[in-house]
Amino acid sequence: MATKINNNSRKHLANAIRALSMDAVDKANSGHPGMPLGMADIAEVLWNDYLKYNPNNPNWANRDRFVLSNGHGSMLLYSLLHLTGYDLSLDEIKNFRQLHSKTPGHPESHVTKGVETTTGPLGQGLSNGVGMAIAEKTLAAQFNKKDIEIINHHTYVFTGDGCLMEGISHEVCSLAGTLKLNKLIVFYDDNGISIDGKVDGWFTDDTAKRFESYNWNVINNVDGHSSEELIKSLEKALQSKNKPTLICCKTKIGFGSPNKEGKESSHGAPLGDKETKLTKKEIGWDYGSFEIPKDVYESWDKKEKGSNLEDEWNNNFKIYKERYPKDAYEFERRISSELKDNWILKSQEYIKACNEKKENIATRKASQNAIEAYAKILPEMIGGSADLAASNLTMWSGSKDIKEFFDGNYINYGVREFGMSAIMNGISSYKGFIPYGGTFLTFSDYAKNAIRMSAIMSLKNIFVFTHDSIGLGEDGPTHQAIEHINSLRDIPNTTVIRPCDTIEAAIAWKYAIENNYGPTCLILSRQNCEFQERTNEQIALSNKGAYVLKDAKNLDVILIATGSEVGITMNAAKELEREGINTRVVSMLSTEIFEKQNDDYKEEVLPAKIKNRISIEAGSTSFWYKYVGLNGDTIGIDSFGESAPGGELLKYFGFTQKNIIDRVKLMLKK
Amino acid sequence: MATKINNNSRKHLANAIRALSMDAVDKANSGHPGMPLGMADIAEVLWNDYLKYNPNNPNWANRDRFVLSNGHGSMLLYSLLHLTGYDLSLDEIKNFRQLHSKTPGHPESHVTKGVETTTGPLGQGLSNGVGMAIAEKTLAAQFNKKDIEIINHHTYVFTGDGCLMEGISHEVCSLAGTLKLNKLIVFYDDNGISIDGKVDGWFTDDTAKRFESYNWNVINNVDGHSSEELIKSLEKALQSKNKPTLICCKTKIGFGSPNKEGKESSHGAPLGDKETKLTKKEIGWDYGSFEIPKDVYESWDKKEKGSNLEDEWNNNFKIYKERYPKDAYEFERRISSELKDNWILKSQEYIKACNEKKENIATRKASQNAIEAYAKILPEMIGGSADLAASNLTMWSGSKDIKEFFDGNYINYGVREFGMSAIMNGISSYKGFIPYGGTFLTFSDYAKNAIRMSAIMSLKNIFVFTHDSIGLGEDGPTHQAIEHINSLRDIPNTTVIRPCDTIEAAIAWKYAIENNYGPTCLILSRQNCEFQERTNEQIALSNKGAYVLKDAKNLDVILIATGSEVGITMNAAKELEREGINTRVVSMLSTEIFEKQNDDYKEEVLPAKIKNRISIEAGSTSFWYKYVGLNGDTIGIDSFGESAPGGELLKYFGFTQKNIIDRVKLMLKK
Repeated sequence: MATKINNNSRKHLANAIRALSMDAVDKANSGHPGMPLGMADIAEVLWNDYLKYNPNNPNWANRDRFVLSNGHGSMLLYSLLHLTGYDLSLDEIKNFRQLHSKTPGHPESHVTKGVETTTGPLGQGLSNGVGMAIAEKTLAAQFNKKDIEIINHHTYVFTGDGCLMEGISHEVCSLAGTLKLNKLIVFYDDNGISIDGKVDGWFTDDTAKRFESYNWNVINNVDGHSSEELIKSLEKALQSKNKPTLICCKTKIGFGSPNKEGKESSHGAPLGDKETKLTKKEIGWDYGSFEIPKDVYESWDKKEKGSNLEDEWNNNFKIYKERYPKDAYEFERRISSELKDNWILKSQEYIKACNEKKENIATRKASQNAIEAYAKILPEMIGGSADLAASNLTMWSGSKDIKEFFDGNYINYGVREFGMSAIMNGISSYKGFIPYGGTFLTFSDYAKNAIRMSAIMSLKNIFVFTHDSIGLGEDGPTHQAIEHINSLRDIPNTTVIRPCDTIEAAIAWKYAIENNYGPTCLILSRQNCEFQERTNEQIALSNKGAYVLKDAKNLDVILIATGSEVGITMNAAKELEREGINTRVVSMLSTEIFEKQNDDYKEEVLPAKIKNRISIEAGSTSFWYKYVGLNGDTIGIDSFGESAPGGELLKYFGFTQKNIIDRVKLMLKK
Repeated sequence: MATKINNNSRKHLANAIRALSMDAVDKANSGHPGMPLGMADIAEVLWNDYLKYNPNNPNWANRDRFVLSNGHGSMLLYSLLHLTGYDLSLDEIKNFRQLHSKTPGHPESHVTKGVETTTGPLGQGLSNGVGMAIAEKTLAAQFNKKDIEIINHHTYVFTGDGCLMEGISHEVCSLAGTLKLNKLIVFYDDNGISIDGKVDGWFTDDTAKRFESYNWNVINNVDGHSSEELIKSLEKALQSKNKPTLICCKTKIGFGSPNKEGKESSHGAPLGDKETKLTKKEIGWDYGSFEIPKDVYESWDKKEKGSNLEDEWNNNFKIYKERYPKDAYEFERRISSELKDNWILKSQEYIKACNEKKENIATRKASQNAIEAYAKILPEMIGGSADLAASNLTMWSGSKDIKEFFDGNYINYGVREFGMSAIMNGISSYKGFIPYGGTFLTFSDYAKNAIRMSAIMSLKNIFVFTHDSIGLGEDGPTHQAIEHINSLRDIPNTTVIRPCDTIEAAIAWKYAIENNYGPTCLILSRQNCEFQERTNEQIALSNKGAYVLKDAKNLDVILIATGSEVGITMNAAKELEREGINTRVVSMLSTEIFEKQNDDYKEEVLPAKIKNRISIEAGSTSFWYKYVGLNGDTIGIDSFGESAPGGELLKYFGFTQKNIIDRVKLMLKK
């Protein structure tokens, strides 16, 4: 497979990456040159000879995926994109790390074409890669036919010591081995250096052995600066039939720098003019700053090769389309992230059915019913749970484990909340799937930064967080979420929805599935929730994030409640009404969606002149002052929970009809 | 070492654990019987023959530490504490999982004597154990003498599949191997079952090999129901000279239950009356509910043995005290968590010196200076960073790496934020140390649940979070904290301090060191911050969490600022004053400390009648409505950041003198 580039010219091509990286970091006076200098030779072999991609179309469905998990080495990737012919100009390279350039400090998928996933927070790129490999395997199984294949490619990941020290690398690589993701090929940049210096002071793992223990195919002791050895390793990796491959490459960080090679000083700071010059001399790169000779550009250019590759695939797809028109149509729908034509109708019918059934069930159960209804319509839904399927209720009658059935739609993630979430980011980035995954709300903590990454990348991910408050009962404070709902609400570009019953749960799931601009977190109760009667207008308004569930004339007070607290709030309001206190109840299932409404609607729901407001939510209160103001009151919980039956706890912490009534009266007295 | 208990009587003693566990879970109608049934034989051998402890004094300094990392099996531990003679009555066992009992759903160290650390969130107990083993090794090296030892004991951990799937297990076990913690002995409950069923669907690691790759001493294929094999394994483990030990025990979850043994159905739900009776019959336990025969109690009782062990140690310590009176005094001070006598005076002197120096430096640098000043006084300070020492500035001139110097005071944690934080929890639980550890504020996400656990346990931990906003610049949105400060503020029992200059940084560190009631998070800038002039009274008031840094008569507006935004706010206020707008600036370094002040002081700082209020903090705004109300304004950032030089970004996002002035004028116009 390798083209005939001799080793010297290969070094020369790799040096183009090195030169661009040094120059860009120097010019920005900020950045990480060490890794691009160290991994340039690996990148050169991979991107010139093995990786299948088309610079003209970064979205070609059957391209190989490439992930730079050690994202601080972003200049390596930018150099590759620039040199091979992606839409990334030399001016952009010169603008490295400047405001609104296409070359931010760490690779960002929503900024730069050709960047598959946003990386930087260590370990997560590797996890995204596992997600992509899962997506590839599953999509292939769902669409390939005995006589013709449309999906068949590899996922390549660059990773460093940092990624491999992070716990998440354990979670996802263990799962990758279990799932036998043989088309995942990971290069380990084993340079012995991390930010604090030589890693043998804090990282002495036998990494090869570790990955063997995960059932990986390990190719050890590869000279990361020898193209021959790299080619040999890649050829071996491509033969792997049922194991992912780790290629452990011995490299020198800051390769070529006379004074910084092999040292942490090359990691995160510019080499500086002088050292850059010395390095260029050392590696035999005799050109000016940002200067790339024409023949080097020509050798790197992959526009034609890429177009040919894609053309070939397009021809193949044409045949597929002729033989399997329905599948081809469905494939195109899936990878372009369109919902089914009947989606709107069917989902509305489901909501109507919920309104007729009037079930008093836990919102986690209502969520499961919604999954059952929607996943039947949308085969792109790929579920899972971090070893809590029977508690999160993430399975439905059509769930098929992808380990047993390659064309399945359910992933047993194991006790790996962070790994699950970062894998979901990889699956979602891949396209063709809507991933959803569950754990207890408290353990959203474990996954926090992956949820954030999902939001940075505007990915369609659905996080199913059940057991959302002290209402879960006996498991006690370690399992009872307090600050978590607000903590998720505060992540930019993240939609948090806490439905109060079956109707709102159905609407929440519908919103999550239709939300193209970032992740949705569903916050669900363990305990049963009373069904709330609504008019059709109210059902429609619940799509606005907050709406008046119960109203009165000449308002004395507004009660703002969410989720499992809506039921008691409604009961309290009815009692208050009997006592002549005019009470409005606002069900605020999602503050983010509410904030997107126009000012008129917001004023309609929460009129500025009504200052008597109380929020009721079994979580921390700080967030609610935004809606109740300095004169308002909050019923919430700002301490840790306790271990006791859930009903008892809710009483103990004041989530009772009586307490709401007392607090209203106290407020009105003031 | 093993006493002469024959295997039959051993089984009988183990069955006492089983019986109590089944009865308690049945009575609570909630809980996890599977693990106690499965690990009872291991617990029996360990607690009867090997573990050194004194039920009369759970705080004896040289006791072995025992951690139940699979904390859902809490009834195992409660049974052991009850049977061996700790202050845990049968009534408490009967009250399992009830409000305010001493037997909550998961073990909680602040509730139950003899529980070393609060567990339940998987993987963290194991990490606490690594922390305890580090503490033991370091404390021993600091205090033991060639002729006499006062600290020399083991740390034992029970762990299950869940803990070993979690990423944090990788982080801490890798580090434990690197640090050669030979006195750490971990029992792996290899029962092949997790909540979702047989683990071979999602967890197929060769765990023995994995731990060998971490340089552990692995004892594999031990029958966890054979006392002989367990004894042999323990004898081997105790011989380990430079490696921690993992004993992989094949066990049956729900051991003895005719219908649930080996099945996930025994994991998290009561066996139920009928199955419990069948199980008791199967294991040959012919007693009533909660009935423990006298001879079984007698065999289990360790009060006398424990007292003897401690007496022996006390006698030894007496000799130590005679030979090394100063060290003995210091040892007693350390393990009783008393600060040094000269602490108050010296720390106040340091704050005075800061006030004279008037340095314009980054608060991360100011933090380093504070560490330098305080760590000289307090040798119990044990620092570290997750591979960002030179960025977090957590090292000082006296820092000594514990890997090189066993009596050191600095831990190179590697890129392991979660592991670091959970290890700190273990060190802090151990007593004798004040751990502090650093990472970037954004990556507090990775450690979130360990910070929470620190707060649940009220541990004295100091988290050093630097690079606290978009002000860090070029690394871009993945590295720029937005929601994190508020997210930490919302964790109950956690103190967050964001100092604005050298004085407030010195005060922040002083508070953190003196705070006996939970963790403190220090939020520190990468960029330089202007020194603020203060009167002595103002310096004193800054201990109250918020204070008036600049005042005016007939107030028009109050500006509330924190950290790096105090400087521009002060400049804006001065300009506003020149323009005739009477402006007060409140520096609110810690909202939690401010909330602890009396109402008079709060009213003094933020008079209710002044409704014109603007908060200025380079983070998410939702939290600030609590202080500015519905009529107030917030200057913050609710989107993700960008990659560009920090100064430019601060301007771009509106953190400028001009924007503050404009927003004040706009507010006053309304």
